[in-house]
Amino acid sequence: MSKIAVIGYGVVGSGTVELFEKNKASIAKKVGREVEIKYIVDLKEFPDSPYHEKFVKDFAIVRDDQEVEVVAEVMGGLNPAYQFTKQLLESGKSVVTSNKELVAYHGAELLAIAHAHNVNYLFEASVGGGIPIIRPLNKCLAGNTIEEVSGILNGTTNFILTKMIREQVDFETALKTAQKLGYAEKDPTADVEGYDACRKICILGSLAFGRHIYPEMVHCSGITKITTDDVEYAENAGYAVKLIGTVKSVGEDQLTAIVCPRLVSKSSILAAVEDVYNAITVIGDGVGDVMFYGKGAGKLPTASAVLGDIIDALRHKERNLDISWEDTGERDFVISYKQAEVSMYVRIRADKADQLKSALSEMFGKLIFIERAGRPKNELAFITPNMMEEQIDENLTILSHTGDILSKIRIL
Amino acid sequence: MSKIAVIGYGVVGSGTVELFEKNKASIAKKVGREVEIKYIVDLKEFPDSPYHEKFVKDFAIVRDDQEVEVVAEVMGGLNPAYQFTKQLLESGKSVVTSNKELVAYHGAELLAIAHAHNVNYLFEASVGGGIPIIRPLNKCLAGNTIEEVSGILNGTTNFILTKMIREQVDFETALKTAQKLGYAEKDPTADVEGYDACRKICILGSLAFGRHIYPEMVHCSGITKITTDDVEYAENAGYAVKLIGTVKSVGEDQLTAIVCPRLVSKSSILAAVEDVYNAITVIGDGVGDVMFYGKGAGKLPTASAVLGDIIDALRHKERNLDISWEDTGERDFVISYKQAEVSMYVRIRADKADQLKSALSEMFGKLIFIERAGRPKNELAFITPNMMEEQIDENLTILSHTGDILSKIRIL
Repeated sequence: MSKIAVIGYGVVGSGTVELFEKNKASIAKKVGREVEIKYIVDLKEFPDSPYHEKFVKDFAIVRDDQEVEVVAEVMGGLNPAYQFTKQLLESGKSVVTSNKELVAYHGAELLAIAHAHNVNYLFEASVGGGIPIIRPLNKCLAGNTIEEVSGILNGTTNFILTKMIREQVDFETALKTAQKLGYAEKDPTADVEGYDACRKICILGSLAFGRHIYPEMVHCSGITKITTDDVEYAENAGYAVKLIGTVKSVGEDQLTAIVCPRLVSKSSILAAVEDVYNAITVIGDGVGDVMFYGKGAGKLPTASAVLGDIIDALRHKERNLDISWEDTGERDFVISYKQAEVSMYVRIRADKADQLKSALSEMFGKLIFIERAGRPKNELAFITPNMMEEQIDENLTILSHTGDILSKIRIL
Repeated sequence: MSKIAVIGYGVVGSGTVELFEKNKASIAKKVGREVEIKYIVDLKEFPDSPYHEKFVKDFAIVRDDQEVEVVAEVMGGLNPAYQFTKQLLESGKSVVTSNKELVAYHGAELLAIAHAHNVNYLFEASVGGGIPIIRPLNKCLAGNTIEEVSGILNGTTNFILTKMIREQVDFETALKTAQKLGYAEKDPTADVEGYDACRKICILGSLAFGRHIYPEMVHCSGITKITTDDVEYAENAGYAVKLIGTVKSVGEDQLTAIVCPRLVSKSSILAAVEDVYNAITVIGDGVGDVMFYGKGAGKLPTASAVLGDIIDALRHKERNLDISWEDTGERDFVISYKQAEVSMYVRIRADKADQLKSALSEMFGKLIFIERAGRPKNELAFITPNMMEEQIDENLTILSHTGDILSKIRIL
């Protein structure tokens, strides 16, 4: 009989307990012995829960109980999750987590502690909800040199953008619908500003490229400034707008890492990823491009990932699974996005905008101008060729006296 | 230093050697020690290969060399691969394979032998080329009760169908293009009749549901009878035609397993899987639906999966990974497809076909009739409601005196 514990009885925690109890028999078969949840740690009281006798408020009870082999930390946030996780690993327990913030900020350290104590720190649930991505990236694709990992990593923003595209409503209206349906929080900042996606691309990038990428190293912009006009121009040019996180190797030993809205070609399978779904693509030198798709959040999907890790941790008792990345303190291996090549959608406002076409074309070499029904005479939208972003910005200074840049959206 | 061997220097074998040599340094880091290919077994001679000194013709040299830890069996076919694999496992070597036929016919037995000898038999490359699916299904989704696994499992037929849809060419023409591009073999039977997809769905089903499903237990029909007329009707009704393998739990303890062309709604992400790409969807009680997408075949993609397994086998020396399924001899747990509920596209030929509409509607309850430009007066196409397939066939006997059934395609 193996004993486990769950810290945090919120959405993911209660889902983990529910799915565990439902599939207890098959889990025992997979682990090779009976498994039982011994404790659920939460400061709140749940007197009506069928598991009420498992609840404890004092984390130390779990930490000090030698019987507990694996703990699911599903409370979220940096503190006290960071201290709890450290203490648990140091006392010889494996920890599995859905806590993306913690992995993005302290992953390298916690993985090293797990290694030193011959236990495991697993975090499949921290990216893409139930979508298997951490283990496939680390194991199945281990024979590849990874070139790029990118994807739609936040379901809330993908839902909002899908609504804006399908129903031609503006950002605020779509956000309100998302909030009404429970897809967006009351304070939606972390989602709509791209911070949540940023943490996830840090985790994926750290794992794929072996060096800790901190959120501060990633250029991050959200979707709050996307307008229905942009959506319409994009549509007419054959693109959908998606919030994409990307980490990509450049040159010998450097990376770019960025989270931003992008125009995704409708012929690409990423464009077909709608609503609250997530999708992560990995490009490797052997495998080419592979994509992992599913619900990126939610009670039971995330619980599915937590449980998969619990089972793996129980099956690897006292055997570290060797997942790790370095944190050398160096940070300049992630180059500025301005040094990366990109093709850019630009929308400008200027008097007699059409008269700027030839001057702009001369600056950029070749531009693709996009139309929309009822385009105002003082508006122009175009797509630049692929060039260094710095150069694009420099070229656009031609407009500094004659017009305003209303939108810039990178093309995937 | 660990020594490995590769048996079969065809497309996958040469790709495996190529990708291994390219990523040798990072593979050593992941395994925790240097790794070297000691032998390549092939009956042909490759005097100009940079690895010519590694070639041997006698399999027994590999089998009897105590130094060799892991062998990649990438020769394909049942014999002698079956005997070779058995002997290798019995002599304490792990075997990784891309051989879907062998796993589909002898998987349960070979996994049991591996278990008994404390080595591993891994087969990530046998389904979906480089797409990670075996390990995610077995590990990441281990907390779920799996309800269904289905997908586009054959790149050749998906390429042909994509061509037929995009360019409105018939099957024969599309097949010729596929052959010209090297996507289809000279004898395309295994692909176009669905046998290849059938082996893969057997492997996925055996793994997901824990009982060996043999190809003979799976109803299998290919794409040779799909016409451009069907493609056009499907298009007009909002569907694309795809060859889909499905295994699904029904009731308490039974399964349906079938490979056949299906109409896939264009709003589904599976419809966006085009050309030689594969995609596998898994439905679990926790995770909901997840999809795995990528190139389902080819030299380097398949080599990527083989190498991932080699690395995992090297890291789990003398530790069986506990992948297995039962073969109790029972076969009736897979019920006949006729007992399963399905909605069906039907195209018929009959004099004054339109006059049959009301009689047909009465039989089926409600039908959706589909139009196409220039539909002949003696042709009618419709989609039935969801009902037992047996019942659909019975209802269609109404036509036995008045018309012919030209096509029947199940809806996904």
